[in-house]
Amino acid sequence: MTPAYRAGMSPATFVAGDLGRWRIEGIRAVIGETLGSASRLDVREGILTPTDGAWSLRAVSGHVRYVERPEKTGLDPISPGLGRPEATRGALIPIRKSDAWWALPQDERRAVFEARSRHIEGSLAYLPRIARRLYHARELGEAFDFLTWFEFAPEHEAAFDELLAFLRSREEWQFVEREVELRLSR
Amino acid sequence: MTPAYRAGMSPATFVAGDLGRWRIEGIRAVIGETLGSASRLDVREGILTPTDGAWSLRAVSGHVRYVERPEKTGLDPISPGLGRPEATRGALIPIRKSDAWWALPQDERRAVFEARSRHIEGSLAYLPRIARRLYHARELGEAFDFLTWFEFAPEHEAAFDELLAFLRSREEWQFVEREVELRLSR
Repeated sequence: MTPAYRAGMSPATFVAGDLGRWRIEGIRAVIGETLGSASRLDVREGILTPTDGAWSLRAVSGHVRYVERPEKTGLDPISPGLGRPEATRGALIPIRKSDAWWALPQDERRAVFEARSRHIEGSLAYLPRIARRLYHARELGEAFDFLTWFEFAPEHEAAFDELLAFLRSREEWQFVEREVELRLSR
Repeated sequence: MTPAYRAGMSPATFVAGDLGRWRIEGIRAVIGETLGSASRLDVREGILTPTDGAWSLRAVSGHVRYVERPEKTGLDPISPGLGRPEATRGALIPIRKSDAWWALPQDERRAVFEARSRHIEGSLAYLPRIARRLYHARELGEAFDFLTWFEFAPEHEAAFDELLAFLRSREEWQFVEREVELRLSR
């Protein structure tokens, strides 16, 4: 099998070890078990089986699952790309949601996500300061369902902390059964 | 990497070759390129890299993407399981949708799928005669986005033909850029 991902999809393998562009400033478990410590994080294109590193996570960025047209119209023009020169701080947050979450029909997941938790609306205020890319891992049989990748300038680290506190305080987070936070710099 | 799928997920590898419980009665391209001919289809549990067979397809069955609570309440009690003794006819229909489909936000995909194409409502009349399981393959980097597996008794083959004709006549199918139909018996 040689996976060939189509336009609009970004498969990635995150390898924690001694190599890579990003220095790992800290790894901590927010909910559940943590991940092993390492000094650097290497982000590689493709779904790979690395032979190096302490651990690795695989995931694919692709189409939106909950965003609706009016939200997309609001988000797109102010959502920055990755790799801005000033965005020398980053974070990788792997999350697993519960079986109860995945057993809900689409309308009830959407209601928890946005109508009750304001995931999109509440995040808008942090754009364009914080760049974000969501990767999906559930269909790959990985230990996490999602990985979210964030990039921002050092002066926006407090705003990033505030965004995380907001998301974690909402009803949606009651369905999170594992969450690990990696803080990064380059 | 040893993928470990969680509760409610069914990873499968469909291997076309000389082995397997299902005899392939026919393979035809509905839209776009076909798949190579073979005499039998073997359905194996897990995301595998077979060394036998003419071709193989990998996919994962999991949570619903468009079904809402009232529909789930209608579907669940009349949706039969797989493997009924009388269900000796089957079909495997791999489908790929266009990049334009995947670029739509969730509400617009849902509107095409159900409000305008009546995918769920129009399929209800065929339950419980036709058992169905939807597998997703897009995140695995496969050539198709979905595989749908169907099982039914020989006397319901005409109803199955009618269901396919209904689905293919609707607006949703304008986004299908590749579709292959395998007819099976055991």
